[in-house]
Amino acid sequence: MNRVLILGTGLIGTSIALALRAQDKQVLLADRDLTSVRLARELGAGEEWHYDQKVDLAVIAVPPAHVASELKGLQARGVARFYTDVASVKAEPIARARELGCDMTAYVASHPLAGREKSGPGAARGDLFLGRPWALCPTPETSPEVLNEVLHLVKLCGANPVEVGAEEHDRAVAVVSHAPHVAASAVAARLAEAPDVALGLAGQGVRDVTRIAGSDPGLWLGILSGNARPVAEVLDAVARDLAEAAEALRHLAEGDQSAAGQVTELLRRGVAGHGRIPGKHGGPAARYGVVQVVIGDRPGQLARLFQVCEEVGVNVEDVRLEHAPGLPLGMAELSVQPDAVGVLTKALHERGWQVP
Amino acid sequence: MNRVLILGTGLIGTSIALALRAQDKQVLLADRDLTSVRLARELGAGEEWHYDQKVDLAVIAVPPAHVASELKGLQARGVARFYTDVASVKAEPIARARELGCDMTAYVASHPLAGREKSGPGAARGDLFLGRPWALCPTPETSPEVLNEVLHLVKLCGANPVEVGAEEHDRAVAVVSHAPHVAASAVAARLAEAPDVALGLAGQGVRDVTRIAGSDPGLWLGILSGNARPVAEVLDAVARDLAEAAEALRHLAEGDQSAAGQVTELLRRGVAGHGRIPGKHGGPAARYGVVQVVIGDRPGQLARLFQVCEEVGVNVEDVRLEHAPGLPLGMAELSVQPDAVGVLTKALHERGWQVP
Repeated sequence: MNRVLILGTGLIGTSIALALRAQDKQVLLADRDLTSVRLARELGAGEEWHYDQKVDLAVIAVPPAHVASELKGLQARGVARFYTDVASVKAEPIARARELGCDMTAYVASHPLAGREKSGPGAARGDLFLGRPWALCPTPETSPEVLNEVLHLVKLCGANPVEVGAEEHDRAVAVVSHAPHVAASAVAARLAEAPDVALGLAGQGVRDVTRIAGSDPGLWLGILSGNARPVAEVLDAVARDLAEAAEALRHLAEGDQSAAGQVTELLRRGVAGHGRIPGKHGGPAARYGVVQVVIGDRPGQLARLFQVCEEVGVNVEDVRLEHAPGLPLGMAELSVQPDAVGVLTKALHERGWQVP
Repeated sequence: MNRVLILGTGLIGTSIALALRAQDKQVLLADRDLTSVRLARELGAGEEWHYDQKVDLAVIAVPPAHVASELKGLQARGVARFYTDVASVKAEPIARARELGCDMTAYVASHPLAGREKSGPGAARGDLFLGRPWALCPTPETSPEVLNEVLHLVKLCGANPVEVGAEEHDRAVAVVSHAPHVAASAVAARLAEAPDVALGLAGQGVRDVTRIAGSDPGLWLGILSGNARPVAEVLDAVARDLAEAAEALRHLAEGDQSAAGQVTELLRRGVAGHGRIPGKHGGPAARYGVVQVVIGDRPGQLARLFQVCEEVGVNVEDVRLEHAPGLPLGMAELSVQPDAVGVLTKALHERGWQVP
């Protein structure tokens, strides 16, 4: 792979281009929007494509609805030896490419699981895919050569390839990304109509649940539309669980204790599902120990805290800051290996930190 | 307020006791469970109550269903001048206290909005309430004296008093705490039945949405049962929004573009609700600038990072670590004042940090 065409210089396309440029690959850029392609070029993502230039690999980085027609056009002119796309939905573009009579042996659909709340070439980063999953959806027609070429692209971008069928992919992202987004929006929508006093009683829990609901509605309409049926299925199941929980709670309110089992069952399934989310390094969610420390709202407090961790050789696996509304202090929760909790707590105590 | 009785030495009762002891108040402890009261005493939370000892304030820290009967019993024996409770639901205990003929002039219901995932006196902390909201629900009968006494208690615990009607309180916590918890469980429940490959594609979004779903189902059944009707109402509204979104997405899948507006509308309401959550220091959610830095998975990386922040006088308002599954590195997102983004980015660059 020496020469790559990036068709579509948005956030994802330009980020791939930057990753390839960092590995000294030749990158050619194209986009219907000339401003976008020029900005990408100025950012060092590559050179503008001249329509007679051939490449080894063409990366189609356009919205799902346009993937198949772009593939058809490029193949008709023999632009590349191999083709992939990076849209967030996979079944529909593949089906459409077949309908259009594309050469399916030279094409494999893919999807890097990375994104930002911002969009466009200006938000692109060469390390956007570092350590992220990158789904590859080969079909029976896919040749080993194109699969290897795209696996090579994934490696160059620092991502982890995950081979998965297209329908399976679409159902998976519906469950782990698209439907959770809509659920967060529906919970946040309740806050829009809640009285001020309710917001004054908000804690960390509702902040976490609704964080992703702050994203751009236009961008998300596109994502959800492209994966509409699988997302609808998951949303129906979530809605059903919530309606049943509401019904059970009303029975409980009327003194029917037999309804308690149904509520507990949903909470238990939630615990089980939550426990399946992989932790750091792709393994099962690790059970870290947590050390809580009171910190002041002054520059340098966190620096001093992490210096102590370094002094005693404790690696901080995760950190969460909880702010105390209305007060200039808060609590830092440091996740560390379970056997490091004692060491760190003692060290912090000795140095005068408040470790409750 | 010199002498306080804490009736119920669980997490909340013992934490209040510890906060009062830190202010040199005399604290007497009682609990049906003698092991619990002895553990609280050993933790320095106070002395065991002898049933003939009178107090200034009695804090009833028992489950909502038992608040009224305990209040009645204490008042019948003239134990305290003033009374409060700290249960997470307010309307039902107040109504029941009236039914039992309690002296409502000497009692004001309250609720500190603080908790931990652990329970019992062993998990108690004297600073549990620091900077947290603490709801007070006076009734028309409530005397100014008891209200002032309990306001004083709230101040001694370092919390922020919020006066609110009991029904209003219950509806508020349904929206900002109880219903979001059930919604997180319902989203997480989908992960329980998802194939492994779906979990392999999980990112930070679903981690945040489902974090609170990891809590103890038994504890949460109690909380939800005590506020069943208001929670059911919110859950019904969330379920309705999700079912309608599912329906709209199916129409979209069939090519009916008119359904897009309904999906966008829900996403927009989510953005509006999310924007209403107060940020640090009780003010409206601040728009911080974010600086992203690539960090390695070695002890001391965060310490060095925060040292740079200190050197250039930048206060880190929040920090989020995003791990790169399968790789020994990740990304730290530092939230700082918008005008500090440039300074910090430059300083990190100069010191060789990868700031994409």
